[in-house]
Amino acid sequence: MLKVGILGGGQLGRMLLQAAANYPVQTHVLENDPECPAAHLCHHFTCGDIRNFDDVYRFGRSLDKITIEIEQVNIDALERLHNEGVTVIPHPAVLRTIQNKILQKQYYEQQGIATASFRVTRQRSDLDLHVDFLPAVHKTAEGGYDGKGVQTIRTAEELHKGFDSPSVLEQKVGIAKELAVMVAINEKKETAVYPVVEMCFDPHLHLLDYQRCPAAIDVTVAQRAAALALQVVRGLQSPGLFAVELFLDQDNQVLVNETAPRVHNSGHHTIEAVRCSQFDMLWRIILGLPLGSTALVGDSLMINLIGAGNEGPAAYLGLDQLLATPGAYLHTYGKKWAKPGRKMGHVTLMGSPTDELLQQVHQIKQYLQVVGSNT
Amino acid sequence: MLKVGILGGGQLGRMLLQAAANYPVQTHVLENDPECPAAHLCHHFTCGDIRNFDDVYRFGRSLDKITIEIEQVNIDALERLHNEGVTVIPHPAVLRTIQNKILQKQYYEQQGIATASFRVTRQRSDLDLHVDFLPAVHKTAEGGYDGKGVQTIRTAEELHKGFDSPSVLEQKVGIAKELAVMVAINEKKETAVYPVVEMCFDPHLHLLDYQRCPAAIDVTVAQRAAALALQVVRGLQSPGLFAVELFLDQDNQVLVNETAPRVHNSGHHTIEAVRCSQFDMLWRIILGLPLGSTALVGDSLMINLIGAGNEGPAAYLGLDQLLATPGAYLHTYGKKWAKPGRKMGHVTLMGSPTDELLQQVHQIKQYLQVVGSNT
Repeated sequence: MLKVGILGGGQLGRMLLQAAANYPVQTHVLENDPECPAAHLCHHFTCGDIRNFDDVYRFGRSLDKITIEIEQVNIDALERLHNEGVTVIPHPAVLRTIQNKILQKQYYEQQGIATASFRVTRQRSDLDLHVDFLPAVHKTAEGGYDGKGVQTIRTAEELHKGFDSPSVLEQKVGIAKELAVMVAINEKKETAVYPVVEMCFDPHLHLLDYQRCPAAIDVTVAQRAAALALQVVRGLQSPGLFAVELFLDQDNQVLVNETAPRVHNSGHHTIEAVRCSQFDMLWRIILGLPLGSTALVGDSLMINLIGAGNEGPAAYLGLDQLLATPGAYLHTYGKKWAKPGRKMGHVTLMGSPTDELLQQVHQIKQYLQVVGSNT
Repeated sequence: MLKVGILGGGQLGRMLLQAAANYPVQTHVLENDPECPAAHLCHHFTCGDIRNFDDVYRFGRSLDKITIEIEQVNIDALERLHNEGVTVIPHPAVLRTIQNKILQKQYYEQQGIATASFRVTRQRSDLDLHVDFLPAVHKTAEGGYDGKGVQTIRTAEELHKGFDSPSVLEQKVGIAKELAVMVAINEKKETAVYPVVEMCFDPHLHLLDYQRCPAAIDVTVAQRAAALALQVVRGLQSPGLFAVELFLDQDNQVLVNETAPRVHNSGHHTIEAVRCSQFDMLWRIILGLPLGSTALVGDSLMINLIGAGNEGPAAYLGLDQLLATPGAYLHTYGKKWAKPGRKMGHVTLMGSPTDELLQQVHQIKQYLQVVGSNT
């Protein structure tokens, strides 16, 4: 059996491993927490730091192939492994481009891919040269994650909020909708594109946010989004599964925001709502098997289950009510410690986004809670 | 998190554990082979004999709940655990009734459940008293499994083929169709019944066998099958997930053949073809959560992938062709050693059983092979 390693042991690794059991593959995980969500679902768990050269190199040396479930990994080690014959999916060069926001934006520019205009800053004082460019969003080139390393700068008075390290200053886009497209590409350069997903934000229903698939967009917008995502992925010249996040702006233009070279939160619904889930698809790519079908099984809404209340051992409230809901699928991530803002699970609701279903999403977001319990 | 143990680490345990990762539960497996299909997918694996009192008792003592994925387990140990407060699902009393074919048949008789007429034999010489009952099928009361312990006796001349241990002599049924119904029942005695499945056998397509869901039967037959299965399960007075196998005879009567008090081969298709899979459902029962929906996602056919050719390290042939088939879902069981007759995986094909789809099943059975490779 092929030996395949995953760098990172979070929820994406966990769901990858649930899917792996359908295929003839021996699985290995590297992560620094032996109680991480993926640790108990692989054949071999190695405790180590995915950002450390020696840990990654030692982990990968005896494997046939290696993939990631998070971008913040040691690329030098992956390059060395790749040169020594361990197939890295996606290729390390792709990780170099994507891990650095300056290189990522320059890549879009070079490929002629529509993206928000940007300027590169090396230190905070560089921002003074770009007052004409405001309002804009300042993003650190490296290390930003889950909202960290991102700062909106509206006026010259706010320039001091910018980052004093290599960064990208991106012109603020008048966002009409946030979209995402997953694209699969294999060694033979065959591709499969998933239906466009929309990240929804409804100010009427108490700032409700959820994802819907398919997106509520014009078919021509969907086509442009899919074509753009495909262009991004083809240009990277690497097999893998990619999530391309896009903006539809107020002028009905589609712009690439950023790309993740891995399974992604925007593809969670594919487990139930698409013939071949994103996790299933990545195994097919890694194992050199044909790509699967991206045909919809049905319409769906997806809600992230975020820690709330106190920090502490995770307690799930409202599971009874949720699981009495036909068409609701629960996924918990096995994280023992809940804290505000932490992703603890997700729920996929099968069905068309009628008023009734949206009301259901609203209710679920009220009663379904993961909190730190007092023990 | 609740600590739940599974006795047995085969493919049913493996698929149970794939589903477990969606729920807040800590999983434990007892099996005597550390490389069994389920070993690497649980939180804690214990190497031991599921038929040995001490092994089962020691394994279960520190758990909250315990279930099975095979019936041949040490019931004495489960009874003791149950009395000491470890919830056993299904209850040990159910296992006692079902594990012994004499008790199982007597249970159907006591409950007034339609089943083939039978007589009890204690030793081979008892068979001489039942010549009037032939043709019949002789089944050993205990230890029969996967076709072993079953012997057809057509005439008085064949009586010597019977078993010299406590057995059931069952009158031969003129079988029109073989059906199966999965039934879920929780602690509150709420029930959910899965759509009727049919085991198909097509002499025209080279003795092709597969399962289809829903069964190609009259709606009144489906209702009778479901009602009978529900009667079997309700009478057992235990929470659990049960597979009731039935015959439709040539007089259009529905008869119970036998019952499995666990997830079952006849429910494999539920992973893709039913809203709540049998594995998902059993976790809901164990964790005291509401039962899931047994509504069909779509029609399906299911094929077991059986070892063929030589014995040896498992090699999968034809995966490329299979996975290029839209609507085909592969499940391999991670068994390292292939031997003729061994269940190595299964394939679910979504779609209505048109001539075209049946032809596809036929083709898959030709090219998809698991053989012992020469290494």
